[in-house]
Formats: sequence, structure tokens, C-alpha cells
Amino acid sequence: TCLSHMQTVTLIPGDGIGPEISTAVMKIFEAAKAPIQWEERNVTAIQAPGGKWIIPPDAKESMNRNKIGLKGPLKTPIAAGHPSMNLLLRKTFDLYANVRPCVSIEGYKTPYTNVDLVTIRENTEGEYSGIEHVIVDGVVQSIKLITEQASQRIAEYAFEYARNNKRASVTAVHKANIMRMSDGLFLRKCREAAEKNKDVKFTEMYLDTVCLNMVQDPTQFDVLVMPNLYGDILSDLCAGLIGGLGVTPSGNIGANGVAIFESVHGTAPDIAGKDMANPTALLLSAVMMLRHMGLHGHAKKIETACFDVIRDKKVLTKDLGGNSKCSEFTQEICQRVQDSK
Amino acid sequence: TCLSHMQTVTLIPGDGIGPEISTAVMKIFEAAKAPIQWEERNVTAIQAPGGKWIIPPDAKESMNRNKIGLKGPLKTPIAAGHPSMNLLLRKTFDLYANVRPCVSIEGYKTPYTNVDLVTIRENTEGEYSGIEHVIVDGVVQSIKLITEQASQRIAEYAFEYARNNKRASVTAVHKANIMRMSDGLFLRKCREAAEKNKDVKFTEMYLDTVCLNMVQDPTQFDVLVMPNLYGDILSDLCAGLIGGLGVTPSGNIGANGVAIFESVHGTAPDIAGKDMANPTALLLSAVMMLRHMGLHGHAKKIETACFDVIRDKKVLTKDLGGNSKCSEFTQEICQRVQDSK
Ligand SMILES: CC(C)[C@H](C(=O)O)[C@@H](O)C(=O)O
Ligand SMILES: CC(C)[C@H](C(=O)O)[C@@H](O)C(=O)O
Repeated sequence: TCLSHMQTVTLIPGDGIGPEISTAVMKIFEAAKAPIQWEERNVTAIQAPGGKWIIPPDAKESMNRNKIGLKGPLKTPIAAGHPSMNLLLRKTFDLYANVRPCVSIEGYKTPYTNVDLVTIRENTEGEYSGIEHVIVDGVVQSIKLITEQASQRIAEYAFEYARNNKRASVTAVHKANIMRMSDGLFLRKCREAAEKNKDVKFTEMYLDTVCLNMVQDPTQFDVLVMPNLYGDILSDLCAGLIGGLGVTPSGNIGANGVAIFESVHGTAPDIAGKDMANPTALLLSAVMMLRHMGLHGHAKKIETACFDVIRDKKVLTKDLGGNSKCSEFTQEICQRVQDSK
Repeated sequence: TCLSHMQTVTLIPGDGIGPEISTAVMKIFEAAKAPIQWEERNVTAIQAPGGKWIIPPDAKESMNRNKIGLKGPLKTPIAAGHPSMNLLLRKTFDLYANVRPCVSIEGYKTPYTNVDLVTIRENTEGEYSGIEHVIVDGVVQSIKLITEQASQRIAEYAFEYARNNKRASVTAVHKANIMRMSDGLFLRKCREAAEKNKDVKFTEMYLDTVCLNMVQDPTQFDVLVMPNLYGDILSDLCAGLIGGLGVTPSGNIGANGVAIFESVHGTAPDIAGKDMANPTALLLSAVMMLRHMGLHGHAKKIETACFDVIRDKKVLTKDLGGNSKCSEFTQEICQRVQDSK
């Protein structure tokens, strides 16, 4: 392999099953001769002088240098006041767009077929502002913060994503009938972006209506863009339609090409270290990463191998309905990747 | 019929298809000899001196006197600053609990079977506080208000409902990992209510996890209790699982027996007056009302007749997959009700 063509990616294996599924991805990438070099970094929040929780400096430095990261699950710290590591990463690198493609996987049975949609979630503000107060005893307020700048940025990203990924329509998801000012602002920015992107169809729909229509017929949806909390909900709902977080990739996109791709399932401490984990979500996130880096050939090859193995149903991890080990499933994908050459 | 046993109910037929489906319900109630007298009231928001939008006084007076109401769909007014009539009704009569049972209907095909759950939504505060501000140009905040009193009231109602309806468990739905203070308060009140109701199982689950699990296997859920917006979303999602708003009943419950039962679908102006509407949602809401009033025999009789007609698939409205008129569907249910005696 010619090292000069290699791109370096920061790998955050994570906790629990994180290291195993990271190893699986590295093996498959090697089999596919993907021109990626990994720079492993441990991410455990540490307290800076002054008490603020931060990402370890060497992990931050690596991400800043490489711009692209791949990350396994991180356990949520228990210490009071300790932030979610996932949220801290999104914040630290201003990863404003959370992108989750949900595509039905042939051979993996769910109540739905032909799902092929993408949720794009505003990742920096909204209900996740973290601003809360006790007004008087027994009365609490949480503040949902919507800004013109962040709304415009995510709206424009959604249309750009739609165009780059040959998708026909963008739906803005909102409750501007109730939150007239905040969701109203978000919606206005989506409409303005739609005006500038007339080649992509634009529709708007209430969040409750989207949820109802989604479970009745998800094939009617394409790209959906929405504020933070709605995206949290809808992305999980849509993951459920195609088989859950074990098979759903995710990408957090920032400005200037910075991005972290991650599996969004838990650390599964009960099966950690037992060679039982399913690496599919992290692998498909890594495939998203390859596409983000323009490596479409390698992406396609790995994705096809993974879907082929699932469709064949011969070598599957337990959660996918089989009784193979993580290493066997990985080996099978490696084999397909190599055979495909 | 012995008039002295009659109870009077305020009937708000509503707009669009509202009058047709209300007529259908009245006919079926008559066939079932349900001891209900209807007092019809029109509800169109009017402006009081001073500019405040209010419920017409004669409708308000009727509801205050009768305590129980049945309501068809109301069109959302277009005037700026005009409130949603549905929200205004909930507010005017302090209907703090929105209860939506979602039960799979035999013979009406959806991707799910054996759904049998109830969403209980806090109906008075949370994200629906209506308090919003522009902080500076381009920065808007919406305030989610959670109070100890309202949280306690809805939590206790959920357990009371579970016990009265022989349900085994209550799940509190929240995002207290993100909104630690507001959802934290809500959750604390649920836990306290659980402590006082140890005969009912209690669990807690993140909203996103509920959505994911819901579309994968809704049969794992029983009674779910949650803040306002989460209930808006989840109740529609669950309605989708069993066939949509056309077959899903709803009740808004207040203190001292006051309650309004309503179909939550739209006014369907395109088919209004054409004898094509499906009265099922309003009828099943009326059945909920009968149970609320303790008229369990009449409730069962009407419900059974309705489900029998749907299961038989011979006389169905268009949206249910048939080609019968609203009046024919209604007549068929009346026939079954009478045959059942
Ligand atoms: C881990 C948690 C803080 C996070 C969220 O609520 O955003 C998760 O649910 C997600 O969707 O990535
Ligand atoms: C009509 C609308 C204001 C209402 C809501 O958002 O609560 C509706 O969606 C509902 O669920 O009853």
C-alpha cells in the first residue's frame, strides 16, 4: 500500500464493546485496502483547572489535525454534573448536523420494506441548550434556544446534502403551530433555503403528523430536517423501522470538512469482551465516512459485502438472528470484500 | 325510555365532517338505548371585550353544567393570534389529562397486531406554555414550564387510570438526561406516585428509546405517562400503529369528573357533506365517554358492534377500505347493536 495516499482518521474505540467492533472495522478496511490510517485516541472526559469538563487534549489535538473521526459507543459518566461525552464531542467540534440515513436492509426482517430516508438533526442548540432555572419552588423552566444562524446553517446543509446525494425532496419537521416564534424561525430559514434550492422539492410537516405518517408508510419520506430534540426522537424512531441502532449509521458534520462518524447504540457491557458484538452500525458509519471523504469505491465495496453477508443469513451475530461470533461475522465480510476484487 | 335516568352531554359537532359523524354517533346511541341526552353547542372562538379569545358563553355554560362533552373536529382559525380551539377548550376547562387508548382493531390491517396501550399526556403546560421571546435579533427562546403540581397531578392520574382499567404497568417517558431540571421534576413526581401505588409496576424510559422500541414491538407497552409535547408526538405515533386518527379515540380529563371526549382527526373539508366520512374515531371516543360515566354495558355493546362491522369488512367507508357511505356504515352498526339485544 502506498502510504502517500493514506488519510489519517482519529479512531475513538469507546467503551464496552467499542474496542471489539473497532477492531472489526479496521480488519474489514484492511481487507478492502481502504487508504485509511488510524490514530487511536481514548476519550474520557477530564476536568480542566477550574472544573470544566473537557475532551482529553491529545484526542482533541488529533481530531483537529485529522478533521475526521470514527467513534464507538462511550459510556455515560455517572458523576453529577458530568456531561454526556457524545454531547461534549458535538459541542467541542461544533458538529452542527447529525445525519442518519435509514435504509431497509434486505434479508433483515422488520415490519417495513423499502425504507430509504435520511434524518438531518440540528445538533447544537434548541432543547439541548442546557439552560434551566427554578422560577419559584416547584416551578421549573427549560429554555429552547433557536437562532437564525444555526437554523440557516442546518437548512442549507439539508439542501446541499439532498443535492449531493441525489435525493428529491426535503421535509422540514416542526411544531410552529405551538412554538410559533422558535419553530417559526426555524421554519422560515428552511423556506428561505428552499427558495434558493428550487431543484429540490420542499415540504413542511408537523412533527406529530410525521410520526403518524412514518409508521404508516415510511417510504413517502426522503430527507427530513429538524431542530435538535425532534431529531433525537425521529432518528431513533426511523432506526427502529429498519432494525434498530445495531444496524444504523450516524454522522456528525461540522464546518470545513470536520466530521465524526459513530455508532449510536450503547456500550453493551453485558456482552463486552465476549466476541458477541455486532459491528454493523460502526461499519456502516465508517462507510458513511468513506463517502464523506470521497472514497466512493471503497465505500460501495464494503457496504455491499456487509449487506451480502446479512442477506445470506449464514454467518450472523446473535442480535441479527444468527449464532456466529463477532470475529466470524467480520471474517465473512472480509472474505466477500476480497472476493469482490 | 325513562327520562329520569338520562344524563345530558354537551355535544360540539364541530366543523367539516363534524356534523355528519356526530349524527352517526347519535343514531348509534339511540339504537343502543344509551341513556344520553345531547345538548348541542356550536364552538367558534369569539373575542371578549379586551380582545381575549374565549369559548362562546353558551357552550361554556353548557359544559360547566353537564360536565361531560363530546366533540367533533374543529377547524383551526386562520386569524393571526387566534388560538387553537382544541387548546382553548383544554385550557378553559383545565382538562389536564389527555388519554388515548390505542388498541389494534381486528380485521383492519396494519403492520402491527395486538397493540393495547394507553398514552396519558399532561395537557396544560410544558412546551405548550405559549411563552416565547426574542432575546436579540435572530435569537428566540421558547419556555418549557414544568410544575410540581401539574406533574404530580398527571402522575397520580396515570396510576389511578392503570388501577381502574386493570392495567399492569405505567412507564414514565422523559428526557431527564438532557432536561435535567424540568423533566427531572416530572420524573421525580412519577417516582413518588409509583411509591404510593406499588400494586402497579413502574418503569421509566427515554422518549427516543420509547419511539425506537415502539415501532419494533408496541406490545411491550401498557400505560405511558409524559409531558405535553412528548404526548402529542407519541399519541400520534401510536395512533399510526393501529390505523390512524380515523379509528383512535381520545379523552381530555379534568378535575371533578369534567371531561371532553373528541376525535382528533381533521375536519376533512374535501369530503364534508358528501356522506363519505368515517365516524369510528368519534364513536369510540363516545364509548370512552360512556365508560367514564360508568355506563359500561352500553359502552361494550356499541364498541362490539363497531368492531364487528369492521372485522366483517362488508360495509366499510372508503378510508377503511370499503365503498359504503357514512350512513350505511352507521346503519350497519345500529343493526348489530339492535341484534345484540
Ligand atoms: C446520548 C444522548 C445524550 C443522545 C441525545 O439525546 O442526543 C442520544 O440519544 C443520541 O441521539 O445521540
Ligand atoms: C391541534 C393541535 C394544536 C394539537 C396539539 O398539538 O396538541 C393536536 O396535534 C393534538 O394532538 O390534539
